[in-house]
Amino acid sequence: MARIVMKFGGTSMAGIERIRNVAQRVKREVDAGNEVAVVVSAMAGETDRLVGFCREAAALHDTAEYDVVVASGEQVTSGLLAITLQAIGVPARSWLGWQLPIRTSDAHSTARIGDIDTTAVLADMATGRVAVVPGFQGVADDGRVTTLGRGGSDTSAVAVAAALKADRCDIYTDVDGVYTTDPRIVPKAKKLQSVTFEEMLELASVGAKVLQTRSVELAMKEKVKVQVLSSFTDAPGTFVVDEEEGVEQELITGIAYNRNEAQVTVTGVPDTPGVVAHIFEPLSAANINVDMIVQNVARESGRTDVTFTVPRTELARAMDELTKAKDAIGYGALEAVDNVCKVSVVGVGMKSHAGVALTMFKALGDRGINIKAITTSEIKISVLIAEEYTELAVRVLHTAYGLDDTSEPAGAAA
Amino acid sequence: MARIVMKFGGTSMAGIERIRNVAQRVKREVDAGNEVAVVVSAMAGETDRLVGFCREAAALHDTAEYDVVVASGEQVTSGLLAITLQAIGVPARSWLGWQLPIRTSDAHSTARIGDIDTTAVLADMATGRVAVVPGFQGVADDGRVTTLGRGGSDTSAVAVAAALKADRCDIYTDVDGVYTTDPRIVPKAKKLQSVTFEEMLELASVGAKVLQTRSVELAMKEKVKVQVLSSFTDAPGTFVVDEEEGVEQELITGIAYNRNEAQVTVTGVPDTPGVVAHIFEPLSAANINVDMIVQNVARESGRTDVTFTVPRTELARAMDELTKAKDAIGYGALEAVDNVCKVSVVGVGMKSHAGVALTMFKALGDRGINIKAITTSEIKISVLIAEEYTELAVRVLHTAYGLDDTSEPAGAAA
Repeated sequence: MARIVMKFGGTSMAGIERIRNVAQRVKREVDAGNEVAVVVSAMAGETDRLVGFCREAAALHDTAEYDVVVASGEQVTSGLLAITLQAIGVPARSWLGWQLPIRTSDAHSTARIGDIDTTAVLADMATGRVAVVPGFQGVADDGRVTTLGRGGSDTSAVAVAAALKADRCDIYTDVDGVYTTDPRIVPKAKKLQSVTFEEMLELASVGAKVLQTRSVELAMKEKVKVQVLSSFTDAPGTFVVDEEEGVEQELITGIAYNRNEAQVTVTGVPDTPGVVAHIFEPLSAANINVDMIVQNVARESGRTDVTFTVPRTELARAMDELTKAKDAIGYGALEAVDNVCKVSVVGVGMKSHAGVALTMFKALGDRGINIKAITTSEIKISVLIAEEYTELAVRVLHTAYGLDDTSEPAGAAA
Repeated sequence: MARIVMKFGGTSMAGIERIRNVAQRVKREVDAGNEVAVVVSAMAGETDRLVGFCREAAALHDTAEYDVVVASGEQVTSGLLAITLQAIGVPARSWLGWQLPIRTSDAHSTARIGDIDTTAVLADMATGRVAVVPGFQGVADDGRVTTLGRGGSDTSAVAVAAALKADRCDIYTDVDGVYTTDPRIVPKAKKLQSVTFEEMLELASVGAKVLQTRSVELAMKEKVKVQVLSSFTDAPGTFVVDEEEGVEQELITGIAYNRNEAQVTVTGVPDTPGVVAHIFEPLSAANINVDMIVQNVARESGRTDVTFTVPRTELARAMDELTKAKDAIGYGALEAVDNVCKVSVVGVGMKSHAGVALTMFKALGDRGINIKAITTSEIKISVLIAEEYTELAVRVLHTAYGLDDTSEPAGAAA
């Protein structure tokens, strides 16, 4: 007998028919003799509807009350799944965030999970009942409802799995695993049997949004064995594992891209110590994340240009802040480009291999794709390119690193 | 300074625009120096939507989980009203049923309110914050969510008012008070300045559904001063008061009607002691409420007929139960009529006046309306008539008891 946490996202919970499908999957694990806790998201679209109400009520709203409103989406699906499980003969009950309780910080709308009390729920599960836990929600020390931020149900699932000392945390989504790249761009993309936590983090941070970043960090810290799989097929999923777990180390695991970037260039900046800090101070104060940064070599004039990227949704605010700080920084001009894309190659294997970057630059250069900026980490190389080259770059790199699926398409054999 | 509980129904909370209107009404009471707690219903239609989900999930569902699902509707509106109040400068916070807590019995989906702990909420209100409390919900001793049954938010409001020792409980609805009868049938119906609790109960039980019956019973027991008024106009409402409070006692307060009745006649019943009990035993066992009962004088054959009414929705089940019990009762035949209507005249004044019933029977007889059954209480006389005469009977009685509004229509004067 294993203890399993199963997590179902909003698409899997969208309507009673789909919830019945979820119940059948849970029943299968119960029938196999497993102890099961299920973590559920709100029905697809419901959280947006509730967030919309809050925004309509007041652009700037009390996040404590926002949490009261939006936490209701998962409350509804947890009750409905318990009813649906009972209807097919699987004993079940819901455990709301404040009932377990799932204690969190009091940072409303972006709370962090602290302690989860599992005494009562474990005793109940021991009687053969499935525990249904709404994701995304918790309770602060002052007894008020909290939520974890969008996508937080993945984090709830991993935290519940860690607290229950579960053997496995299965995250059911509308994709059936983690692919070497976006199959909509590269039909020959392969599903990965496993990725390391670190790779998953880098893939997520550059746009492959299969799991919420915080859930992966938590799984890595708590050593929770995570599996990503589809609620709509029976295909095996992708395991997210520790690097030590003897995963076959490919040089490159996947190619990711992120179109949500915009590029800002500040020209004619005095090349004096500390001036770059002057550029980023107002952005930091305005809570705008700056990503790739390139500083050109100073011209003879003693002035230089600084280029960096910000999230595209923050571009207007970033330009605004920099315009206000023009005198303090003493730059010449501001330029903004919002049709850029960040493309990244990710893989733990590159730690021990030289030449990975060269392959990337060569493959892109051969197709005439200009690189505007570069950043690297231990297991990732990212380049900024013009957005119109996104698909071409992803395909070229997928082939260059030997990731194309060369097996027969499913169903092609007689 | 007074302490006031304001309660807003689903129509008043249907969408952010209407919630803003509610917030303005709350602000007016706060600006007048009052301490205010607000009890809110779910948005109109929302509870139906949630109940629909539960029914779709399983026809017979665990009421504990049903409560988890349906309680979310009021959770959402309480958070949204708090946000909307804050947006117009009125400090406010929501207090969910389990946060106050509002302790109830564990009869899920039809729980009864027990104790309400007001320590924390009173301390918070003393700082100048408005308390926003979701109606309809509470928490059982085992820490699980409960609900009070449909329309339960009125009861929540009265219970909160009693616990807070409020000076007044204002129930805002989509009508602007209690009328002498249904204004859709009698355009000359008058709005009542006040009715007694007993009259309100009788009016409610015969179809004038302005307040939930249990809320009136509770207000009577706890001596809560209730006012019914409209959230959409500024017209004065109707006060629901104790009989002792020196209300000017009209002979008749109002005319009510109820089309949800069906009539069953059991013919050829042996006229022996205890036989009537044999008829009602199977109905009672099946939880079917029997209302008006008429037993004819026995015929020479030693047999008699018994006529009674049941809720129209229960007619099929009632006929079923009686058919199964035919041998045990030993009756001749069963007859069912579902196009009947119960019309009632209500008024505390009739206690001390003779001739009230005579006026009724005469007024109906003059129009050729046949009376099929009669029941009376201290402050009510009800008759069963053919449904097609409903409007005529209500109009005739409204005039016969001098209830017609004889003042000039509003706006008619120059």
